[in-house]
Amino acid sequence: MTFRSSRRELLVSGAGAVAALGAGAGPVFAGQADGRKLGYAIVGLGMYADVILPRFAECRHSRVTALVSGSREKALRYAAQYGVPESGLYSYETFDTIRDNPEVDIVYVILPNGMHHEYTLRAAAAGKHVMCEKPMANTAAEAEEMIAACRAAGRKLMIGYRSHFEPANREAMRIVREGELGRPRIVTAETGFNIGDPTQWRLNRALAGGGSMMDIGIYSLQAARYLTGEEPVSVSAVESTDRSDVRFREVEDTINFQLTFPSGVVANCVSTYGSNHNRYRVVGTDGWLDAEPATAYNGNRLRLRRGRETVELTPPALAVNQFSGQLDHLSQCVMTGAEPIVAGEEGLKDMRIIEAIYRSAREGRAVTLQA
Amino acid sequence: MTFRSSRRELLVSGAGAVAALGAGAGPVFAGQADGRKLGYAIVGLGMYADVILPRFAECRHSRVTALVSGSREKALRYAAQYGVPESGLYSYETFDTIRDNPEVDIVYVILPNGMHHEYTLRAAAAGKHVMCEKPMANTAAEAEEMIAACRAAGRKLMIGYRSHFEPANREAMRIVREGELGRPRIVTAETGFNIGDPTQWRLNRALAGGGSMMDIGIYSLQAARYLTGEEPVSVSAVESTDRSDVRFREVEDTINFQLTFPSGVVANCVSTYGSNHNRYRVVGTDGWLDAEPATAYNGNRLRLRRGRETVELTPPALAVNQFSGQLDHLSQCVMTGAEPIVAGEEGLKDMRIIEAIYRSAREGRAVTLQA
Repeated sequence: MTFRSSRRELLVSGAGAVAALGAGAGPVFAGQADGRKLGYAIVGLGMYADVILPRFAECRHSRVTALVSGSREKALRYAAQYGVPESGLYSYETFDTIRDNPEVDIVYVILPNGMHHEYTLRAAAAGKHVMCEKPMANTAAEAEEMIAACRAAGRKLMIGYRSHFEPANREAMRIVREGELGRPRIVTAETGFNIGDPTQWRLNRALAGGGSMMDIGIYSLQAARYLTGEEPVSVSAVESTDRSDVRFREVEDTINFQLTFPSGVVANCVSTYGSNHNRYRVVGTDGWLDAEPATAYNGNRLRLRRGRETVELTPPALAVNQFSGQLDHLSQCVMTGAEPIVAGEEGLKDMRIIEAIYRSAREGRAVTLQA
Repeated sequence: MTFRSSRRELLVSGAGAVAALGAGAGPVFAGQADGRKLGYAIVGLGMYADVILPRFAECRHSRVTALVSGSREKALRYAAQYGVPESGLYSYETFDTIRDNPEVDIVYVILPNGMHHEYTLRAAAAGKHVMCEKPMANTAAEAEEMIAACRAAGRKLMIGYRSHFEPANREAMRIVREGELGRPRIVTAETGFNIGDPTQWRLNRALAGGGSMMDIGIYSLQAARYLTGEEPVSVSAVESTDRSDVRFREVEDTINFQLTFPSGVVANCVSTYGSNHNRYRVVGTDGWLDAEPATAYNGNRLRLRRGRETVELTPPALAVNQFSGQLDHLSQCVMTGAEPIVAGEEGLKDMRIIEAIYRSAREGRAVTLQA
């Protein structure tokens, strides 16, 4: 891989992955993608598909060419709305025949967490590249199999970590990594919401893999990692769940966790299904940076504290919104051969840490992570 | 004890202690204090004495009548500035003769933490009431002896927890306790600063008892307790200290801790000597409240989030500043026989929790607290 690498443009993104920030254009690679638009199949027409599908309109390298749904009626309705031909409609039973559809380059898995593993493996077996929503899987073991399957098939695997394509979060990473706060010391990150309908799949252990940590706490974990650019060496977590609450019969409500990183910076994180949280702050020896909301679909607000002054920042604009940027990034990687900045390995790292967080909370002790 | 107790005026303050909020007047007791001003002896003319001494000017029930210092020259200079007669000047060697000074009712111990125990015992033995700075002592065992000594002498013992006399913090307690946030779910609290001079007593284990936790983290611990009005049932803590940093040869730098309370509310707290922090937030099912700065000498700012609106609050004014309010509170308690809202028992609770926090960090496991 080669990247453009002037100081302002080079950004260490995720943990170890490196992305170049084109001038306001989002991650762009030296080997430019050509003018084609790659075809996406959207697997699962739930709530988040309603967020993603309209974003293809802004994409430069991506279009939607197939839909996979258990409801033919729903598939037809969405097909009409988004211009997908009837030949691009699949049920879960007919999904594997997608291998014969040359209009589909990438399969985007937006199913419940517990189905990510199966559909990633089936997509790879069908010869397609894969975008998989977070969390990558229910377990790290599943995540490893997903990576291996895509590698064996010679296909890309990327995780839907949209914050890496969002202006405020990219600017936050740059500010911290370039030392504008001095030496980073403490990260606090909180993500949560008051979850409703007790019958939803997010509260079903088999489908969700866990509770708030898997769904929303993962944003705090990601933020702690992409803001510091470090990998935690130990975790300590405390769970607080009212098991008499009908929503929490199978999965955890609140789980707070502390991460210790090699440089000595520590992260103190909140994950909950009981109240609204969406912010982080990085405090360094020379100042701090915070965001609230931090990882919203839009309207994230970034502030910088230096000396006695707190200023609201206007991050450099990117060419497209975070959703379109994410979709186009994988298309570009497929066209150029580059690795996604949030590849399967990035999702696997989170899964391993999440498993350590659960173990720490369960055993009431700090858990050391393998390097 | 009887208190005025209209709903707006009654405030559960500290853990279990109850104080009445007079209309803008701070904690006031039914058995009104008379017009006298009780006499304070200030023990230790360090930096914090410079903060406290000017506050007697605003006091209604307190005046400074004695000074204790190792430097006769310094004592004379301060005596001239604050109108203390030469008969009220003591060295540490002559301190015990303060028993013969009828102008001294209360001894305010503003010495390094490691000397709180000795001077509280000597003050009680001299028949004086005691105001002792936080942290109450180096250990819970010392704190217990201090309480026992004051009780045996029939004298009051109060800890210098000034936030209980500060408008923003009192309003925050009221808002949370009266249910304006719905059910409290998560407290986050951060206190810290980048400590300088490596030779100062705060970095000496014998004099400080510990590092950031004893000095500044205790504000986060206090906030978690006075905001929720609950006592933690378990703690989990993680320390991060660079022992090659000349400042941290004897005491900890950063120690973050999680508290679990009986109702299920959890607190996620930061304590550090490495970077600047002074804020808390309480998140409930119906909204949140935050303060930043939260426990400054002045200028604390309180915000309330309800629905989609965040508003800055103007807490009801108190008659006097937090320092004068604290001084007058003990004077009033002495005159009326009431117990201080932040008595020695309150300081002991913090000391026991701090010891559990240290143990948790040392042993890498959650520690259960005795009820």
